[in-house]
Amino acid sequence: MIVSFDRLAQGIRQKANPTVVGLDPNLRHIPKCIKATSFDKITDPLQAAADAVLRFNRAILDAVADIVPAVKPQCAYYEALGWPGMKALTETIAYAREKGLFVITDGKRGDIGATMEAYAAAHLGRTEMGGPSAEAFGADALTVNGYLGTDGIAPLLPLCREHDKGVFVLVRTSNPSAGEIQDQLIDGEPLYERMGRLCEQWSAQAAGGQTSGYGCVGAVVGATWPRQLGELRRKLPHTFFLVPGYGAQGAGAADIAGAFDAEGGGAVVNSSRAILYAWEKEGGDGRDFAGAARRAALRMKDEIGRVWAH
Amino acid sequence: MIVSFDRLAQGIRQKANPTVVGLDPNLRHIPKCIKATSFDKITDPLQAAADAVLRFNRAILDAVADIVPAVKPQCAYYEALGWPGMKALTETIAYAREKGLFVITDGKRGDIGATMEAYAAAHLGRTEMGGPSAEAFGADALTVNGYLGTDGIAPLLPLCREHDKGVFVLVRTSNPSAGEIQDQLIDGEPLYERMGRLCEQWSAQAAGGQTSGYGCVGAVVGATWPRQLGELRRKLPHTFFLVPGYGAQGAGAADIAGAFDAEGGGAVVNSSRAILYAWEKEGGDGRDFAGAARRAALRMKDEIGRVWAH
Repeated sequence: MIVSFDRLAQGIRQKANPTVVGLDPNLRHIPKCIKATSFDKITDPLQAAADAVLRFNRAILDAVADIVPAVKPQCAYYEALGWPGMKALTETIAYAREKGLFVITDGKRGDIGATMEAYAAAHLGRTEMGGPSAEAFGADALTVNGYLGTDGIAPLLPLCREHDKGVFVLVRTSNPSAGEIQDQLIDGEPLYERMGRLCEQWSAQAAGGQTSGYGCVGAVVGATWPRQLGELRRKLPHTFFLVPGYGAQGAGAADIAGAFDAEGGGAVVNSSRAILYAWEKEGGDGRDFAGAARRAALRMKDEIGRVWAH
Repeated sequence: MIVSFDRLAQGIRQKANPTVVGLDPNLRHIPKCIKATSFDKITDPLQAAADAVLRFNRAILDAVADIVPAVKPQCAYYEALGWPGMKALTETIAYAREKGLFVITDGKRGDIGATMEAYAAAHLGRTEMGGPSAEAFGADALTVNGYLGTDGIAPLLPLCREHDKGVFVLVRTSNPSAGEIQDQLIDGEPLYERMGRLCEQWSAQAAGGQTSGYGCVGAVVGATWPRQLGELRRKLPHTFFLVPGYGAQGAGAADIAGAFDAEGGGAVVNSSRAILYAWEKEGGDGRDFAGAARRAALRMKDEIGRVWAH
């Protein structure tokens, strides 16, 4: 049986590209031509905005699906558009999966017991309704926050094992103030390492028949901390990394080299704004936003290819 | 100007009841008579389930609105029903606010920068769409996860100050494995205390003209840890507490006594399942689920009233 991160690893090998495009649709950066069509035909502003987002996302997916193995919709931007935004998220995920892409929903969810089971069903599984069951959002993986400990992760594991899904636990995030909590020393060990070790344990609990050597519990480790990234790669040999912070947040190709194992496995690097809104840097009215995104995705593949041994 | 937790404190005084009813609609526990009506008239299972949830919630709100000052919808149960569930969440919040209730959306969201701004707009503010703006979910307060540090909280503060909203940061959660991360010692101080001190700092940064003495950054502190609850009350004099774990999770009235200040202020105690699904304990077919919820809410008020000095 292929388990979740093996499927992602397979996509990375096939496309020779360990990157993921973040789908963070921010209306301020979506071209006017896209927005005008939606706002002209739909009166309700949230529904119009959600329509624009979905059309934008589909064009982006058409433009990058043959280049990247995975996409990462960021929940916050869909939630900001209320339930119409969540409908656009559902339809974006379905469209991406039709195109064979691995979908990581970036929700950073974290709760316990039956509540965490509800999140797991929502994003990775099916919701039971005492008779019928249905898929709510249907991603392949979900980002989660481990501050609540094992009670927040355990409810995800049976689902990962049985339905070939994965989770990425926040370990060392890419933002400037990450250290306020994550770098604090516990018996001489930074908290983020403790969280990383828990990821290894959780993966072992849910162990399936992985061929890649990586379990279904991965970790988010920011590209903006290259030293920690390399150290964690060595210390967490079964933990697949999702690496944010490349591009708009300032990290370059050299910074992410340490994320990979000797075979170039074990990590996928995200870029969101630098790809989605590449049209703003190219100039023009945005009519060719999808072409600009494609060119940016190819550039990122080239840049990372230079440091990526495979 | 009244800031957010003053408004909650006012409701607590008016109703002489420092409790909040958690709206965690789980289809397994919603009476058959409610579900049958929705599933008979609506084909799509997620839409039918969301319809049942909304009708269930409205009846609960009708039954408890004159007893409790606040309600706390738990996002996970709405997300589990996909976008129709999120529509039911929107309509539940609107209905609760019409009834004058303070609404705490329990999302435990946590992200950084523009992404956290999107969550803030989604749940507490208005989403800007370059011209029109709209309210997506419209709660009074949101629970958040502080693992990412100040970058995850700062985007919420202007909104709290300007639009009279509040946030509750997870400090010491009610679950058995909370200590794996939260109790770890940093220079002799448990991590949850460090997080609590950050709450005091964040509140001070956003200080408005509170009359209650509590800032707009509150903390989630579980009732299942009575010793820590009392200690944190003394150490965090400006931090309003949201206290889960009462009832179904095992804590009783004596356990939460330490959450309050000398005037009975500074905390609100949540109960979800013990109120929503009181009909299952009373027996019967569930037709009187709203009456059972009302009786349970009154019982909780009485129980807590015995330890609540005001």
